[in-house]
Amino acid sequence: MTTGNNVSRNGKTDVKAKVHITLKNGVLDPQGKAVQHALGSLGFGGVNDVRQGKYIELDLAETDKAKAKDAVEQMCKGLLANTVIENYSIELVD
Amino acid sequence: MTTGNNVSRNGKTDVKAKVHITLKNGVLDPQGKAVQHALGSLGFGGVNDVRQGKYIELDLAETDKAKAKDAVEQMCKGLLANTVIENYSIELVD
Repeated sequence: MTTGNNVSRNGKTDVKAKVHITLKNGVLDPQGKAVQHALGSLGFGGVNDVRQGKYIELDLAETDKAKAKDAVEQMCKGLLANTVIENYSIELVD
Repeated sequence: MTTGNNVSRNGKTDVKAKVHITLKNGVLDPQGKAVQHALGSLGFGGVNDVRQGKYIELDLAETDKAKAKDAVEQMCKGLLANTVIENYSIELVD
């Protein structure tokens, strides 16, 4: 019996991963600067700095959290993040 | 006396806001689909779904959390998020 989309056949819950990808400190963020400038133009003063990153949610067909974390780590290194200039952080939820 | 960049003149800590902007459920996410496809091509099977959103960090020159939250809410509605197709969530940290 399945009670939802994220429950696999053996009754265990599939793992969902939330990945944050942010530019490393010191790396210029033109997108963030553009947002900061646009906010200023719209009358929102008092914004000292803006940094823009990516947020990726992955639905994994994996019920083991440790294995899922390893897999997502490899995905970050191989595709999602440019580890030369970007940091990534992984958060797993059931 | 200031102990760091985020401490303003009156000794209170400036507020930092973390904003997540995600596509609403049901809205097609071609960027997420592209990532999912690319992961598959790289040998990462078992990825059921990928949704990509934005993650924005704002350094505010504001020490009052309630005022900061209001300001960021206005920024989200006015510029950061397209509320027709996107949801936003705001998290404040000192």
